[in-house]
Amino acid sequence: MKTETLNYKDGDVNLNGLVAYDETASGKRPGVVIMPDAFGIGPFVKERAARLAKLGWVGMGADPYGNALMAKDLQEGIKYAMALLENPAKVRQRVRAAVERLASLPQVDPNRIGVMGYCMGGTCSLEIARDGAAGVRGIVSFHGTLATQLPAVAGTVKAKVHVCHGADDPFVPVAQVAGLAEEMTKAGVDWQIVSYAGTVHSFTNPDAASIGAPGIAYNKHADDHSWKAMTAFFGEAFA
Amino acid sequence: MKTETLNYKDGDVNLNGLVAYDETASGKRPGVVIMPDAFGIGPFVKERAARLAKLGWVGMGADPYGNALMAKDLQEGIKYAMALLENPAKVRQRVRAAVERLASLPQVDPNRIGVMGYCMGGTCSLEIARDGAAGVRGIVSFHGTLATQLPAVAGTVKAKVHVCHGADDPFVPVAQVAGLAEEMTKAGVDWQIVSYAGTVHSFTNPDAASIGAPGIAYNKHADDHSWKAMTAFFGEAFA
Repeated sequence: MKTETLNYKDGDVNLNGLVAYDETASGKRPGVVIMPDAFGIGPFVKERAARLAKLGWVGMGADPYGNALMAKDLQEGIKYAMALLENPAKVRQRVRAAVERLASLPQVDPNRIGVMGYCMGGTCSLEIARDGAAGVRGIVSFHGTLATQLPAVAGTVKAKVHVCHGADDPFVPVAQVAGLAEEMTKAGVDWQIVSYAGTVHSFTNPDAASIGAPGIAYNKHADDHSWKAMTAFFGEAFA
Repeated sequence: MKTETLNYKDGDVNLNGLVAYDETASGKRPGVVIMPDAFGIGPFVKERAARLAKLGWVGMGADPYGNALMAKDLQEGIKYAMALLENPAKVRQRVRAAVERLASLPQVDPNRIGVMGYCMGGTCSLEIARDGAAGVRGIVSFHGTLATQLPAVAGTVKAKVHVCHGADDPFVPVAQVAGLAEEMTKAGVDWQIVSYAGTVHSFTNPDAASIGAPGIAYNKHADDHSWKAMTAFFGEAFA
């Protein structure tokens, strides 16, 4: 397995991502973009990209803010995230830049792209689904917020949607879950939502406790199960 | 694979079930009870039991009404189902009789029992989870109704709970889904609910159209996906 930096641009913004793949494999294979949480691109994303490479796909860690900017604490992360998320068109453009960069790699099949994301990155993944980006077959949100200012339009969304939700996540209330279901059904999207019991925000992050905020905690069961569900989901989407 | 009749009793009621297993395998293995829909034990249950046997488990089709009674149409099925479901204690006893019969088989590990069910059978599966029956590690409901007159009591439920839900099922409104989540969380249960887009009641039944009722339809995607999710779920529960 090989992990390399992968630089790309969104307009004037320099984005510093990474890509993980099996350098001994030949032929084009599916690629999956990982949109990070509000802290930006860090070791967690790198580790998950390497896991995707082990599954036979090309895993790309995307840079949400530019110049691989990382937040030093939750407060700063929320500030950066809000500045990005306030403009859904900008979010979509930012994710599209990552999708296009990944699709341009010689080992990637540009017609079999997935996008997944954590927290803010889950929100970003839903935005690129709503945008109907070319080649994106499926998106997975892990504990992402689900609301949008630009709801999906019927016939636009080509990607299947898989949402992994902590049932007790105070940042993603049940009304948001119901709202997404309604939005996606109206838009004719093939979607699934999995709700996990006793699970709050950031449930995939083993270091969640270090963030030191209420409603944020690692949950090994939900992390393991949602990872498996994601692999099965993309497996179907890429078939 | 072998499928045989399996007779047992619930008090004075004669129950005529079936069991499917790999007769060439040796050693004790997990067993899974299938609680049928309101039509009673028929070819669909037999086919799913055989599929469970192919997975290396022992699949048992349970008889919900006695003497393998089957409803001739939906109206009759609803009449039979309501007579059974009006008394949750009776439902639990009826399922417990099946669990105990399955657990008594020489090829079954009595500590690794699963119960799954379709429509009314999903409701029955949830009741046996609430009852905390010995050896039952997990239950799966496919388009079952989720409400109960006897909510789960904290500390009672030992089984993990996996609910497969059609997001547009008119018989299982979203308030019931939320109610189950609340009930199960209060009771400290490890649960998951998967909601499938564009999916109504009886989504696992390829002959659902022949029932000829609104809100009832087969959905191949939800059927395939929920079957895979069930196998992964029981795989974890039996580990």
